[in-house]
Amino acid sequence: MKVIDLTHLIHPDISVYPGTDKPVLEPCTDIDSEGFVEHRLEITSHTGTHIDAPAHMLSGGRTLDEMAVDRFLGPGWVCNVSHRSGAEIRQSDLDLPSGVEFLLFYSGWDRKWESEAYFDRFPFLGPEAANWLTGRQLKGVGFDAISADPPDSTGYPVHKTILKSDMIIIENLTNLKLLLEKHFFFSCLPLRWLHSDGSPVRAVAITDL
Amino acid sequence: MKVIDLTHLIHPDISVYPGTDKPVLEPCTDIDSEGFVEHRLEITSHTGTHIDAPAHMLSGGRTLDEMAVDRFLGPGWVCNVSHRSGAEIRQSDLDLPSGVEFLLFYSGWDRKWESEAYFDRFPFLGPEAANWLTGRQLKGVGFDAISADPPDSTGYPVHKTILKSDMIIIENLTNLKLLLEKHFFFSCLPLRWLHSDGSPVRAVAITDL
Repeated sequence: MKVIDLTHLIHPDISVYPGTDKPVLEPCTDIDSEGFVEHRLEITSHTGTHIDAPAHMLSGGRTLDEMAVDRFLGPGWVCNVSHRSGAEIRQSDLDLPSGVEFLLFYSGWDRKWESEAYFDRFPFLGPEAANWLTGRQLKGVGFDAISADPPDSTGYPVHKTILKSDMIIIENLTNLKLLLEKHFFFSCLPLRWLHSDGSPVRAVAITDL
Repeated sequence: MKVIDLTHLIHPDISVYPGTDKPVLEPCTDIDSEGFVEHRLEITSHTGTHIDAPAHMLSGGRTLDEMAVDRFLGPGWVCNVSHRSGAEIRQSDLDLPSGVEFLLFYSGWDRKWESEAYFDRFPFLGPEAANWLTGRQLKGVGFDAISADPPDSTGYPVHKTILKSDMIIIENLTNLKLLLEKHFFFSCLPLRWLHSDGSPVRAVAITDL
């Protein structure tokens, strides 16, 4: 069994979606006084590598705690879209072997994580490709960038197309390059919390399971 | 593939270790104003079903972000200690098939979750049993109760014995009864955050993988 971590480290200076708060991670006990260390974590449902649930953008959409736990695990595959900088991913770019339940898009934008360049010119899913994906029995689609929609989007049409079909979206993945041309088992189990419109996750790929 | 959720739901009235804060889960955006819902989560590193890292109780002990990601995944087995209410788990109670990397103790205390009775009379690991376990090549031990040490412990000797051997401890698990007499693949991948003395997790068991 080989496990590849697809998750960015959460720390106080992490990249966050423009307009949202950075995380606060503070010790609230220590070994000398209480005998143990604990931290208080102040994060959002979309801090770091995270899932968007249908409820993130759709009134009446499902939250993650309303979904069966096996919706966050399954066979994965990486589609290489690194040639689409600043452009839309088209249906003709899609590479989806049968049996795959999670399609992850490799753009290489994880190299720009924690720089201003992370927020600009990443490949984004086009409406035709997004529509096609909704008919493919997928549990989710994932990106190594900040969004499935283009950087200047305000209406988030791609998010809505994907989420309406009850799939999840995983954003801010990393290390997808290591998985090109490989079959793997993908896991993005979210924290289990009430009304979860999304959740930070520890996303991993397991090869040679 | 069958996935069994071993995780309690985090919500504002969840059981917490005496003296620590309850979680705060508050919407910070809404669909009408911003086009999407997000929540602010204020939790601790030991809220709900969670891992204790060596650094939780040992000065200089490793944090979860310093451990390889495959330390949180592997073959699991449940040891039935439900006959040990209010008493210590002895070495003679231990049932550990070869190849198992996570030994989880079923006490049935998850039925008392969110009641006062949850904090009292749960079976706890005796020093002899804890010592024996440290020599068994385990990645971790788990409990469906609030602690590996007895309720009135202040020095936490069992925690320290286990954590000194660089194993992790998982606390507040649920549904272990469903796994009695079964081999399964256990996953307790923590959030990836800096200096993590512990972390809430989505713990699951996968059978028929």
